[in-house]
Amino acid sequence: MQAIPEAQLLRLEGLREKVNLALESLIQREIDNGAGEVAQISGEILLSGGKRLRPLLGIFCYEIAGGKDLDEIMDLALASELIHTATLIHDDINDAAKLRRGVTTLHERIGQPKAIIAGDWLFVHGYGLSGRYSKECIDLIRDSCANIAISEFKQLDHILDLSTSPEDYLQIVKGKTAGPFAAACESAGIVAGASTEQIQALGRFGMELGIAFQLKDDLLDLHGDERMGKPRGKDVIEGKMTLPLIHALTLLHGERRRHLADILNNFNDGLWDELMGLLETSDSIAYAESLMLTHLERAIHELDKFPTSMAKSLLMQVAENVHNRYS
Amino acid sequence: MQAIPEAQLLRLEGLREKVNLALESLIQREIDNGAGEVAQISGEILLSGGKRLRPLLGIFCYEIAGGKDLDEIMDLALASELIHTATLIHDDINDAAKLRRGVTTLHERIGQPKAIIAGDWLFVHGYGLSGRYSKECIDLIRDSCANIAISEFKQLDHILDLSTSPEDYLQIVKGKTAGPFAAACESAGIVAGASTEQIQALGRFGMELGIAFQLKDDLLDLHGDERMGKPRGKDVIEGKMTLPLIHALTLLHGERRRHLADILNNFNDGLWDELMGLLETSDSIAYAESLMLTHLERAIHELDKFPTSMAKSLLMQVAENVHNRYS
Repeated sequence: MQAIPEAQLLRLEGLREKVNLALESLIQREIDNGAGEVAQISGEILLSGGKRLRPLLGIFCYEIAGGKDLDEIMDLALASELIHTATLIHDDINDAAKLRRGVTTLHERIGQPKAIIAGDWLFVHGYGLSGRYSKECIDLIRDSCANIAISEFKQLDHILDLSTSPEDYLQIVKGKTAGPFAAACESAGIVAGASTEQIQALGRFGMELGIAFQLKDDLLDLHGDERMGKPRGKDVIEGKMTLPLIHALTLLHGERRRHLADILNNFNDGLWDELMGLLETSDSIAYAESLMLTHLERAIHELDKFPTSMAKSLLMQVAENVHNRYS
Repeated sequence: MQAIPEAQLLRLEGLREKVNLALESLIQREIDNGAGEVAQISGEILLSGGKRLRPLLGIFCYEIAGGKDLDEIMDLALASELIHTATLIHDDINDAAKLRRGVTTLHERIGQPKAIIAGDWLFVHGYGLSGRYSKECIDLIRDSCANIAISEFKQLDHILDLSTSPEDYLQIVKGKTAGPFAAACESAGIVAGASTEQIQALGRFGMELGIAFQLKDDLLDLHGDERMGKPRGKDVIEGKMTLPLIHALTLLHGERRRHLADILNNFNDGLWDELMGLLETSDSIAYAESLMLTHLERAIHELDKFPTSMAKSLLMQVAENVHNRYS
């Protein structure tokens, strides 16, 4: 990993701060307008951390596509963060999760009814922010949001389904994680007035990056890191079929596969060593890592169509961070 | 109640059928596009009945405001129904309701995770349908949806709060029930290209009608009717402060008020006669009925600004139906 040039780092941090300030003032405006507790609480969740990955991607994609006016893209960038946070809140309810970003989840703190509504409120405002853009952009965001729902249904159907195939996995990931990345990048290109070819390249960049992002998530779930802010093995406990597990279930045979199935069906913290041993036998961690790198390379390859610029370096930096992140 | 002229009745039924067909083909299109179970299930809920009150109001308001092209308003009309259905699904989860329109609620049938997501999916598509309209319309819909969330928070805070005032009640009703009516009517006027004065009159018409609609709901909850499709006293059991209860709690004093408070805090089916007796003592049913009529009159008064037309007669008919409905 190369050291990041200071100018890039300053720009990255400066923009992240701008996004944070814009999110803060959006929430403050709604509170001032009388939105009360729902804005207060949704705001706390929205502002309680997060890498602002989707907004930053949108801004950099806008810039490499020729966009010059940060104000022109900011609402779309914020929209992706609000919608993302809305889905996290509803996901946490559905997963009965206790922790998010190291703090107690919203439904655990204020009860499920208010948490469902807070998610709805964030979603409304996220979607509302897209209202100033072209119908093409609004349709892209609608489709990516609808695909999240479609994929979440699929994911629920595959809970503890040990016959889940890599194709099922990819379909779910494309809808749930990578699609919103792609929509943020593609719509940014549209706002910048880029060529069709460039817009499509940005969409593919976002999709590939999003798949890599999810694969890294899968790996983090197995490795664990206290900085993650959620317990190690959350996916395994919830019966979510992550790629390393799918790979191992496909490669292992006979007694070993039966043993792995047993572990997954009855997982507890005492089974970590056995699980990781089996995943090592099938080389599934290494496989998921190399698959992640392939998708990252594909993502970066899409940027070849754009001239060298600070924004392009930053997009490559974001891709690098997907690989190196710990949460 | 006057008999409805046959031409009006035919037009009303014809339009309701058109709305139903348009909803059906929207769902079918999404299923054909691969949306799968989430579209199937959300479609079942969407198409399982409902008076299509919000779409019809939108269409008639568009027409009295001078709109001539049904295709121009149809997406906005459908949007209001999709968003309404989405809120019903999430409400039913939050109320832990077992029945809706006489059938088992969605979360009871398919589990809460899929029900939350189905609500989100309907919401996405409802909001998505508004994407072809002006920013002014999209903002109106955003604000009305955000106000639903804000008011639901307030309503949750007032569960079994026997000191809830008529002002609290009106604020909740305006946000949760009447606001979406107002948005449907007002945005229809915008699409029709009506004058600012007319657009505002349509907004007030929707708001007043919506308040009357909620008051009728409150009364239906107390009277009960098997055609309602939900159990009598659902609101009372859930601790919702409906207007007749608020009125009685305000008017009664001493032993009678303590008795009423006791009944509400420990309600069960054996207490119906005592509850209704107390509401009779305070004349609260008659008060709620007369308040409902006042709001209906105010609604109809707003239509004075529009010339006589079939659409105007139909809007008055819809208002009449709010009064006479049983579900």
